[in-house]
Amino acid sequence: MRAVYFDGELQYREDIPKPQIESNESLIKITYAAICNTDKEIVKGYKDFKGILGHEFVGVVEESEEKDLVGKRIVGEINIGCNQCDFCNKGFQNHCRNRKILGMTHKDGAFADYITLPNKNIHVVPDRVSDMEAVFAEPLAAALQITNMYHIKPTDKVAIIGDGKLAQMITQVISLTSCDLTVIGKHSEKLDLLKRKAKTILLQDSKFENYFDVAIDCTGNSQGLKYAKDIVKAMGTIILKSTYNSEAMLNPTSWVVNEITILGTRCGPIDAALRLLERKLVSVDGLVSGIYSLKDFKSAFEDKNALKAVFDLQMN
Amino acid sequence: MRAVYFDGELQYREDIPKPQIESNESLIKITYAAICNTDKEIVKGYKDFKGILGHEFVGVVEESEEKDLVGKRIVGEINIGCNQCDFCNKGFQNHCRNRKILGMTHKDGAFADYITLPNKNIHVVPDRVSDMEAVFAEPLAAALQITNMYHIKPTDKVAIIGDGKLAQMITQVISLTSCDLTVIGKHSEKLDLLKRKAKTILLQDSKFENYFDVAIDCTGNSQGLKYAKDIVKAMGTIILKSTYNSEAMLNPTSWVVNEITILGTRCGPIDAALRLLERKLVSVDGLVSGIYSLKDFKSAFEDKNALKAVFDLQMN
Repeated sequence: MRAVYFDGELQYREDIPKPQIESNESLIKITYAAICNTDKEIVKGYKDFKGILGHEFVGVVEESEEKDLVGKRIVGEINIGCNQCDFCNKGFQNHCRNRKILGMTHKDGAFADYITLPNKNIHVVPDRVSDMEAVFAEPLAAALQITNMYHIKPTDKVAIIGDGKLAQMITQVISLTSCDLTVIGKHSEKLDLLKRKAKTILLQDSKFENYFDVAIDCTGNSQGLKYAKDIVKAMGTIILKSTYNSEAMLNPTSWVVNEITILGTRCGPIDAALRLLERKLVSVDGLVSGIYSLKDFKSAFEDKNALKAVFDLQMN
Repeated sequence: MRAVYFDGELQYREDIPKPQIESNESLIKITYAAICNTDKEIVKGYKDFKGILGHEFVGVVEESEEKDLVGKRIVGEINIGCNQCDFCNKGFQNHCRNRKILGMTHKDGAFADYITLPNKNIHVVPDRVSDMEAVFAEPLAAALQITNMYHIKPTDKVAIIGDGKLAQMITQVISLTSCDLTVIGKHSEKLDLLKRKAKTILLQDSKFENYFDVAIDCTGNSQGLKYAKDIVKAMGTIILKSTYNSEAMLNPTSWVVNEITILGTRCGPIDAALRLLERKLVSVDGLVSGIYSLKDFKSAFEDKNALKAVFDLQMN
């Protein structure tokens, strides 16, 4: 089958064998798959992964012991637990000590004609949700993990730092809380997409200091957390969404003095994401910046202004 | 009056004028004052402070418009709010935007014969609490700020990293929750003081990894947070108590991936600290490593094995 494969270098291949399902797994034919910043970080060396990239996808189940799934449009949870460790036993397979992660850790991903996934990871896409909406279910779930882990109040002053792919999802999710929301970014054309959901301001014009109850870093780099500290209030909360392939020089004493809480959040609830899409409370309009064939992976990965670059597996 | 004064260099002086009280303030004659790690960090350049050091003290009110206070043994909150900013208006003078801090920021401290403090900062010491116990009220309150800000459950596995002055207070406070408590330190003689309150282990023998629900860093240096990350579980909480005069190279991506919460905590409730001392739930036995006159400040500051070095203002 076709795939975008990474082994230190990103390459298009047609010689990859179609994966075989094991018991309690389904074989999924990919319809669309999208590029996440984490994929780009993996290409830079984050995670030390070799294999097929890609963890944002929508597809159709082609083979499964669970006959009800066959022929269904589905999306999937990307963390695959061992079902044996203490985290799995408590239902936290996202934090399984031996987990595989689709397109990231010991598991080939979705930039390919086919993937396999455990049936328990699969969520059927409701009829009212299109394939192009469904490919956003995984990043939308990651955005929802913020409200899953932290109570944002209607009266909170909240800043989102960043205006990229994930920031677009997060802004839509957080705006539903009715909080006083400001998005601070570097790209006026990306900020423009969010004007109906939040106040928006260019970083260069931002003069906030010790002001926000909550600051959410989705810049994708180590400057985001530093800036979040500057603009969040004493006793405020910084929520981290960025993953990147580097360390950062930081000042924890300032967090102690100001009694700041820092909360790391990662993957979230796919079922809740599908509900938001089905209820049309989140829109993907304007977020797809390009549709590519797998063969054309270089253009897809290199488009620096890209919001969401999507692979269409029906294209040659 | 006599004082230990810092202006880039630490010095003993006898030429400092006795401070004058303003309206709503009391003049306090110091009985004991103790050295905190923060004092040592200020001497290294943290806070850029010039003036009389010292913020842990017990004394007697000598002058006050509030006549009930005169003659009383007292301790005090060290943060002095402006009573005008948004934080003060909400009752959070600890985070006042224009705050003075005793012996730290725009306010002369307690390594002196006298200090002044606003009456609202003053807490009368209960009869059952000795002067030597009361001098621990401020660091004990700082320890209590942990349970004030975070709910430690009886079933939590909790690590305290560090075995110094503050760790001694924190261990006693956290042990009251009945949690499964382990103190990890570098000094067997200091760990020995805690054996009846917690399991203790030398850092060099510790093999914990992804294990504790909560890890409390009171090492006083930037290695503490890194080590806390190693031993705390996914979805766990790291509580920071250390303040130090440097930045640290850290890996926030690991906090995101493991959905770690990091909580900075600082000064705490003095009234609650006095209740613990009055109920004899916290003991200061063995914690005073030396009693010094102000004149002898060098020995007091330089004693590297010191737990609590205490100035006795009755000594010449």
